[in-house]
Amino acid sequence: MDRINKIIEQITPVDEKTRKKARQRLDIQTKPRGSLGRLEELAEQVAGIRGTLEPVLDNKVIFTMAGDHGVVEEGVSAFPAEVTAQMVYNFLAGGAGINVLAKHVGAKVKVVDMGVAADLEPNAELIIKKIAPGTKNMTKGPAMTRDEAIKAVCAGIEVFEEVNSQTQIDMAATGDMGIGNTTASSAIIAVFSKDDLESLTGRGTGIDDQTYQQKIAAIKKAIQVNQPNKDDVIDVLAKVGGFEIGGLCGLILAAAARKVPIVIDGFISTAGSLLACKLCPKVSQYLISAHKSVEIGHTCMLEMMGLTPLLDLNMRLGEGTGAALGMSLVEAGVKILKDMATFEDAGVSKGE
Amino acid sequence: MDRINKIIEQITPVDEKTRKKARQRLDIQTKPRGSLGRLEELAEQVAGIRGTLEPVLDNKVIFTMAGDHGVVEEGVSAFPAEVTAQMVYNFLAGGAGINVLAKHVGAKVKVVDMGVAADLEPNAELIIKKIAPGTKNMTKGPAMTRDEAIKAVCAGIEVFEEVNSQTQIDMAATGDMGIGNTTASSAIIAVFSKDDLESLTGRGTGIDDQTYQQKIAAIKKAIQVNQPNKDDVIDVLAKVGGFEIGGLCGLILAAAARKVPIVIDGFISTAGSLLACKLCPKVSQYLISAHKSVEIGHTCMLEMMGLTPLLDLNMRLGEGTGAALGMSLVEAGVKILKDMATFEDAGVSKGE
Repeated sequence: MDRINKIIEQITPVDEKTRKKARQRLDIQTKPRGSLGRLEELAEQVAGIRGTLEPVLDNKVIFTMAGDHGVVEEGVSAFPAEVTAQMVYNFLAGGAGINVLAKHVGAKVKVVDMGVAADLEPNAELIIKKIAPGTKNMTKGPAMTRDEAIKAVCAGIEVFEEVNSQTQIDMAATGDMGIGNTTASSAIIAVFSKDDLESLTGRGTGIDDQTYQQKIAAIKKAIQVNQPNKDDVIDVLAKVGGFEIGGLCGLILAAAARKVPIVIDGFISTAGSLLACKLCPKVSQYLISAHKSVEIGHTCMLEMMGLTPLLDLNMRLGEGTGAALGMSLVEAGVKILKDMATFEDAGVSKGE
Repeated sequence: MDRINKIIEQITPVDEKTRKKARQRLDIQTKPRGSLGRLEELAEQVAGIRGTLEPVLDNKVIFTMAGDHGVVEEGVSAFPAEVTAQMVYNFLAGGAGINVLAKHVGAKVKVVDMGVAADLEPNAELIIKKIAPGTKNMTKGPAMTRDEAIKAVCAGIEVFEEVNSQTQIDMAATGDMGIGNTTASSAIIAVFSKDDLESLTGRGTGIDDQTYQQKIAAIKKAIQVNQPNKDDVIDVLAKVGGFEIGGLCGLILAAAARKVPIVIDGFISTAGSLLACKLCPKVSQYLISAHKSVEIGHTCMLEMMGLTPLLDLNMRLGEGTGAALGMSLVEAGVKILKDMATFEDAGVSKGE
């Protein structure tokens, strides 16, 4: 826990002075004030995070964290658990959705084994931080021990620090892979929200009515059996979370501590960032929500953090696919700030 | 009018067979079916338009068409009319929002003088198709003659054909510049819609209450004075339109005839495409609405064409800025279709 507290101490509010200067610059550029809407807000936010009007966003890294979930025994997913490991290999081979979209936006993908239930073959592109081969079935007891939960968050911090020490990261994004992980994410949000479980639980990869009922029942039982304490983030993660969710939480804390903007993907990534914000509310200043997931509990989580998603493209794949598209919009906003002419530069008459 | 009818005859429905094959391929890729939402729909649409499962989108061109509007005499805009020409020079110098965003997405910008009220200096990057130095004040009579309206649409066709003959265009986008052109666009939509003028007219570049009242009054008067015939598209364009709006209409017809997907920008571009769809309803199959403009009449126009915008980023700049961002999403969707592994390729187990 010392490691986690140490990183939290390093998280400071964003630089409001630079943020205001960015707004002033945007206001004298050749366009009606504010007419580039959210692109301008992104530019302001990133300027504030990086503390400069000329943020460089060359090194963009998407962290796709994978883990398995014991709760799949309860029949909560349309896909078998073996798919988690198979998809990790697909990521490493470059054939998955996240590979295609990361390449499209000029970002790298770092794949992390946080707790896949298979011994994965070593690969130069795979970061192994396996806490255990999958969580335990949370309907029968905690998904992981408190010690494992702390280890998962610390591993997320380490992943960021290690990759950042090789080449400084200018913008980070989160992604996930893990059959059963929408069940864990819905359970996390259910602990923090007063809303009905049904309004927080979606159909994940696309499950039928029976599987959906099993999913709802599993989450109810997990919360009843474990009684997670919502004032203790590590307790929530341990009892109903997942290794990749803990890893994402740690990664986000570390990125915020290093003043790196973090583009978060959909439902699972948002569960990870909710835990990070509960540990340190200042983290939300560093977060950009890329898209509104089809998962119905997503909006509730985003509201808790005061975030509004950039895109709404009916996506629900995870992996970081929405975040990849979001990164491109952030970059577009920053380029506006850096490269657009002012009224004076261009000799254009101002409005009223 | 012969030229226009000839191009309309060449517009055929998109290739449904290839579209279906694209859907089949998307359904066996390593993701839950449909989980990339609108990206998958874009891929299907472009496959249908291009008639291939491997559409190439290397040559992306944004056409930013400029024109002036006599109605600015009525005090309808926050900016003086001279800004239209000044902004054209800004486009040519590469300092405008559209230049920055086009570069970001790897697209070229072609700037077209359709009727700017100034003699622009020749420039290799400027296409001059000036119909007249600005339209006439539509509150006192038609904005242009019927002959000029036909010429404007034909000029738009020519612009596409000329640029396409140099290097074949893989994807086109529309943009606009013209002080006063939201007034003309609101007037066009008001002719076709039964909605109140107030619900179809927005604040353009950001006008105050008094200017807004003048704008509403000008549109009402223009419609009353000219009595545009909604069953005669050229009549509507002539009486309350603009040269750049006519040019965009022609450009869109030509692109559809050459089976090129067209990403449309905000309010003014959508007015141009509405005219194109009224001339030839099949055109809507070739259109992709990039974003929901802040202009309140925009949604009504999109609904008339059955289009749903991709983005909602609170933007209202025009120039093609929203379309540029939309192009990147279209490309993302097509790359998914082309580059993602199938379950079989990747050895991943299928779901239920």
